[in-house]
Parts: sequence; C-alpha cells; structure tokens
Amino acid sequence: MRAEIVAVGTELLLGQIVDTNSTWIAEQLASAGIDCLFQTRVGDNLERIVEALQVALGRSDAVVVCGGLGPTQDDITREAIAAVMGVPIRRDPGLLAAVEAVFAARGRQMAAINAKQADLPVGAVPIEQRIGTAPGLVCPVGEKVVYALPGVPDELREMVERAVLPDLLSRAGEQAVIVSRTLRTWGTSESGLAEIVAPRLDALDAAGPGAPTIAFLASGIEGIKLRLTVKAPSLARAESALDAEEAEIRALVGEVVFGVDDETMEHAVGALLVARGRTLAVAESFTGGLIASRIVALPGASLWFRGAVVAYASEVKHAVLAVPEGPVVTPDAAAAMAEGVRRLLGADVGVATTGVAGPDAQEGLPPGTGFAGIALPGSPPDAVALRLSGSRERIRQIGTISTLDELRRRLLAET
Amino acid sequence: MRAEIVAVGTELLLGQIVDTNSTWIAEQLASAGIDCLFQTRVGDNLERIVEALQVALGRSDAVVVCGGLGPTQDDITREAIAAVMGVPIRRDPGLLAAVEAVFAARGRQMAAINAKQADLPVGAVPIEQRIGTAPGLVCPVGEKVVYALPGVPDELREMVERAVLPDLLSRAGEQAVIVSRTLRTWGTSESGLAEIVAPRLDALDAAGPGAPTIAFLASGIEGIKLRLTVKAPSLARAESALDAEEAEIRALVGEVVFGVDDETMEHAVGALLVARGRTLAVAESFTGGLIASRIVALPGASLWFRGAVVAYASEVKHAVLAVPEGPVVTPDAAAAMAEGVRRLLGADVGVATTGVAGPDAQEGLPPGTGFAGIALPGSPPDAVALRLSGSRERIRQIGTISTLDELRRRLLAET
Repeated sequence: MRAEIVAVGTELLLGQIVDTNSTWIAEQLASAGIDCLFQTRVGDNLERIVEALQVALGRSDAVVVCGGLGPTQDDITREAIAAVMGVPIRRDPGLLAAVEAVFAARGRQMAAINAKQADLPVGAVPIEQRIGTAPGLVCPVGEKVVYALPGVPDELREMVERAVLPDLLSRAGEQAVIVSRTLRTWGTSESGLAEIVAPRLDALDAAGPGAPTIAFLASGIEGIKLRLTVKAPSLARAESALDAEEAEIRALVGEVVFGVDDETMEHAVGALLVARGRTLAVAESFTGGLIASRIVALPGASLWFRGAVVAYASEVKHAVLAVPEGPVVTPDAAAAMAEGVRRLLGADVGVATTGVAGPDAQEGLPPGTGFAGIALPGSPPDAVALRLSGSRERIRQIGTISTLDELRRRLLAET
Repeated sequence: MRAEIVAVGTELLLGQIVDTNSTWIAEQLASAGIDCLFQTRVGDNLERIVEALQVALGRSDAVVVCGGLGPTQDDITREAIAAVMGVPIRRDPGLLAAVEAVFAARGRQMAAINAKQADLPVGAVPIEQRIGTAPGLVCPVGEKVVYALPGVPDELREMVERAVLPDLLSRAGEQAVIVSRTLRTWGTSESGLAEIVAPRLDALDAAGPGAPTIAFLASGIEGIKLRLTVKAPSLARAESALDAEEAEIRALVGEVVFGVDDETMEHAVGALLVARGRTLAVAESFTGGLIASRIVALPGASLWFRGAVVAYASEVKHAVLAVPEGPVVTPDAAAAMAEGVRRLLGADVGVATTGVAGPDAQEGLPPGTGFAGIALPGSPPDAVALRLSGSRERIRQIGTISTLDELRRRLLAET
C-alpha cells in the first residue's frame, strides 16, 4: 500500500505558513507501516490541484489531501476531486442537516455560504465532522482512493486517526490495529541508548514479523524518543503488547525514561513533587527564566511551584540570594543559589543554574560551562556540572532540561 | 518565470522533521515575484528523485532542489540530476581542492568520503560553499535549470540569496534587484493597520508598475509585519527607495512600528534602555519567566537587565515584592510588583505582570484578565489592562510582548 500527501493552500506556496499537517500525517503513515513516497504542495487553483491529484494517483494507491474544504470561494478541493473522479457534485441533504446542527449547537445561525460544506462528489462518502464544521471525504477513484480532510490541524488529526488510517489498513488487507507509544529519554547519547537496547532489538528481530518494532527519534532539546509500535488484532491486545514491551525496555534503560507520549520533563518533576508533598523554587542565571516558563506552562503548577529569581546580574546573586562574594560560575555558587532561593521563596526544594551561555567568555570560562545547584530538605545543597554546547539558545535550552532532569533523578533517589 | 521546490530526504517522508527549508525558499521566491506553483518532497531514492525532477521540469522553468548533497551513501541528489541531464558525473579537481581547503581551515584532515562533494554532473556550475563543506550546483537542462542546495538551513539560505535568486532574476530577463524590508508592528489589528495604511496603498496603486509593494503578514504572537518590496536597477537604488517608503509608512503608523527585519520587541526595549543608561528588573506572575527568557536570549542583555522575580505564588508577591495583602490580579498589585522588583533588584525601571492564564478562573476573574505594571524613576508606579485571549500558552505569550510594548511606549514618551 502506497499513499501520498497533497497539501492544498496558496499560503503554503507563498511560504506564509509551515506545512506541519503533512509532517504529522507522514509520521502516522510511517507508524502504520504504509509507504509514503511523495508529498506535494499546491495552491488554491483548480487546474493545478487536479494535476497534483492525477500525478499522485498515477504512482500511489491512496492520496490524502488536506485543506480547501472550507466555505469560501478559495476552497475548491471538492471540485478538483470531482473532476478527477469524473463525476458531478451534489448537495447532500443529510450532510446539510449535520452542518446546520453544528452551528445550532453553538447557538449560531448558519450563514448561507456554509451550505457548501454539504457538497459531495457523487460516489464520495463523508467522514463525520466532530470538531469543526467541514466533513471529510472518502472518494473512490477506480481501485484507488482520495481522502479529503480539512486543513485545521485538530480536525484533520481526529479524522486521520478515526477514519483514514483504519480505512487504509483495511484496504491494505490488514485485519489489525497498529498502535504506538513513545518513551522519552534524557541523559544518554543515541549510540549509548542503542547499545543498551541492542539485546532487546536482537530478540525482536529473531522473533520475526509480528513482533513489536522500536524506532529511535533524536529530538534535540527534547532528548531521544523510543517509539514502540505493535500490530495486533484488537486495541486491547495492542495495548497489552505495548505494556509488555514498555516493561522490557524500562528494565534495560531504567530512569533514563522520564515520560511517555506527551509527558514532558516538567510533568515528571511536578508529579514527583506532588507525590512527595513538596514545593519548588528556582534560581536562574544563564537559563534566564526558561525553567520557570516551562513550569508555568503546565496548568496546575501552582500546586507545587512557588516561583523563581532570575539572578542575571552578579550583584543580584550576592544581594538577593546570599551567594558569597567571589566568582559566580562555580559549583559552590550554584549550590548557594539553590539554597538562597529556597529560603527566599519559602519552598521545600531549590534548584539553580549558573553558567556561560556565550557568545563571550565569563570569568575566564568558555561558553558551555555550567552548573546545576540542588537544595533538598535535610541535606546540604550541592551542585553538578552540566554538559552544554552549541549556540547561546541551545546552551540555555539544554541547561534547562538537564537541570530539571537532575532534580528528577534526585527526587527519585530519595527513599 | 515559474519555479518549483523539491525537498529531498527520507526523514521528511517519515515525518521526523518539518520541511522549513521549502517554506523559507517559497517566501523568497514570492518576494522576488517568481511564481512557485508546486512543492514536492521525496525520499533518498534515485528513481523517485529523478521522477520528481522530471515532473517538476515538465511544468516549470526552474527547480530548486534542497538536500542530498552530503558525503554519505544516502546523498544521491547529484546522481539524480545527472540522470535528468543525461550526462555523467566527474570529480572536479578545483572543487576537490576547495573542499579540502575547508577542512584544512578547520584544522581537520578530510575523510576520503568527503571527496564526493567535489563531484559534478558534466555541464553543471558549482555554487561556492562559504559556510559548510558542500558546494551547491547550477545545472542547465535544455532551456531550463535545476539548482541543487545543501539541506542545512544556514548554508541553503546563504546560497539562495547570493546565487540562486540573482540567477533566476537574470533568466527572467530582469535587469533589476528585488529587495524587501519588514516593519514589525504591535498594538493594532490587521484591519486597523490596513485602514491606516490605505491612503499610501492607494497612492502606490495609482503610481502603477514599478512602485514599491506592501504586504501584510499576520504573525501571531509576533504581531503584524508590513513587508515593503522594491525592484530597482541597483542595490543602492533599491535601498534608497526602501528608505523613502519606510519613511512614508512610519509617518502614517508612528510608534506602532517597533522594529525592522530581525529586530524583536526586546531588542527595541534594550536599545531604548541603553540609550537612556537605565537598567531593568521584571516581576512576572502569569507570564512565568517568559519576559526574562526573551530578554536573556539577547547577547549583551547584561548591560541593562538586572534580573527577574517569578512571583507565581501569591505569598511570594506579598513577602518578596512587598505587594500589600489582598487580591493580586489588580492594577494596584501590578504597580506594586513593578515597584517592588525595581527596589529588590536595584534597577532603575521595573515592569510586572499579573493575570489569569487559565484554564481556571482566579479571584473570580476569567482567563485573559491581566495587567502590566510599570515603575519608572521619578513618578509613582502604575498599571494598564492587557488585552489577552486564547489558550494558556497564547495568553502568556501575548501578555509578554504586550508588557514589553507598554514599556517601550513609556520609554519613548519620556522626554
């Protein structure tokens, strides 16, 4: 089964927006084991959308089209598909009632222009709209198929998961569901992680087709992700196979895994603090507010986050955080900052960063030098050196997640 | 002149990375007045790269290919272009010396594998590499042309600006250079801005072809950009026409413009503070470190930025920033935070944010309620209401830039 993606929209061709829809769909197709060999972007032009669809259908079994299903004059994906199918368009009374119902449920009168969203190429089957107002379409073209989806990411994603992937798999003759789970890691290199996981990869290879597969996704400042994918006759069987595989991997890699799927490092830290009934204060120098801003991005952070001091000027470190006079890019200064902010903001736990983000050296130290200070109740504060490199922005981002990871490991290590 | 973009890389088809190169190139083509009607992505597969190039050359005059010029076995863009041109590949001794020189300049021995980067389809002209190790290629195909560029964004961008756009324009018969300048604005809606600029747009329309053009680019949390584009016989004439047009627009919109091209709001604030010899301290509640982290992202911020207090818990506002007991999402609390942080961190100027980012209400106020406090030397601190809406993330981002903009306008208003 080969599929292609065609993204429709003049704003894509003008470079005004980045085509993240195609990237997301491509990732889903790859996870489901469906080859995607080409992706095309085309503007809101009937003739050229038709041409893009014909080229794509000429070399693939299925085409996923996104965008151009809205109510305006620019939205002509339906017309292009009808031309490719060689059929007229008709308004579907049931679909019209459904679109009207969406507006009614929001307490709004439907503008006449929206009736267009009930238009279908004859022979196409609608995909019910559950988030937006535009239904998707499943359009047979001979033995092949075109799926049309709205360009709004939330609407598109919901329809791909609910309707497009299952239909593609059933056309591919799969009686199976394919489900993935991502384990997020921090603190090892890709090659180091590959080495640790190698025995399990060998075992899965030996088990042959049908065994779970594992992919490594290097994700920059978000660490390395391990994506486990299983194919099973039912969702329940797939989930249970994923549970078993996750346990195998965790037994090998241990606390390198900080989260699953959408769980970020700050989620992990927050969950540990809440479980221990502790609050946190943060002192930041070269990270300059990045740790605090990641934490505050989490709804519910007020349960465990007191606040932060961005002590950018050295005098602020001395005067506000009671760091002893002397150099400030040292393990001792990091430890003193962590203890100082813990006391100042009345928190149970303090963490701190101090370092050189560049481009210039500071205190004779090169960019990339950095320390994380940790102050836990009942023991003297201390610090670890951070491994940082790259641009100013990258040094600050890596410093942020590394410091949160150090805190996570300390909290895990507490009995 | 019609151009297309072909992005090469299996990682694009698997959805592992987002194709920002195509978006950037598309924007440059649009600015230069070159139509771009299709964009394609294809994997590291010889046959399919050839197919994508042939389809593109069949409908356009020029194709910009990015990716696949590196030294590894996967990098086969050169081979695909040679197949399309119907010519063999040969190693260019001059180019080999140039690639070796790049490694030598970095004090490294060139690994044998890199010699591949000196390979050229016969008839192709190299584009000198000034950042990375791989040269680009200008490859004539009959009357048409394929440009091959490395996939590394910095290398690609430099080559597009220096070599590809001038070559495309000269092929299009343009004896002109096309240059753009972007004015960045904050504080008006797109329709409001369009209304203010309308007289100038009418005048330019009346002036006919050859007059500068103005495009509105709504850029979300970065405001609305006005892109001025001029075509002129020389760079000097183009710059002088841009200067004149910028003056016309600024006369209409005034201090709504906060920066030009890559100048951010924090650049503007920093420049004003440095010019006035003032230092800044920030107190953040719902923005939670975002203001500080944007400021610290600027190299040289240490000249004027003292630091920040993220006073997330209400008790921190009272105990550390001396905000009087009582509700904290009020103009008075914002003003007190600004004054409190100014004193605590020993700065000349203080700014503060307090508000409700959501998803839940706070102090009976809905998400989107927010205030910016400002404390300037020599006058009592005060506060303004912020206009915020959307998700938690959007409320925090809009609150951040709006607060910086308020500070910018206050500093501008000082005599």
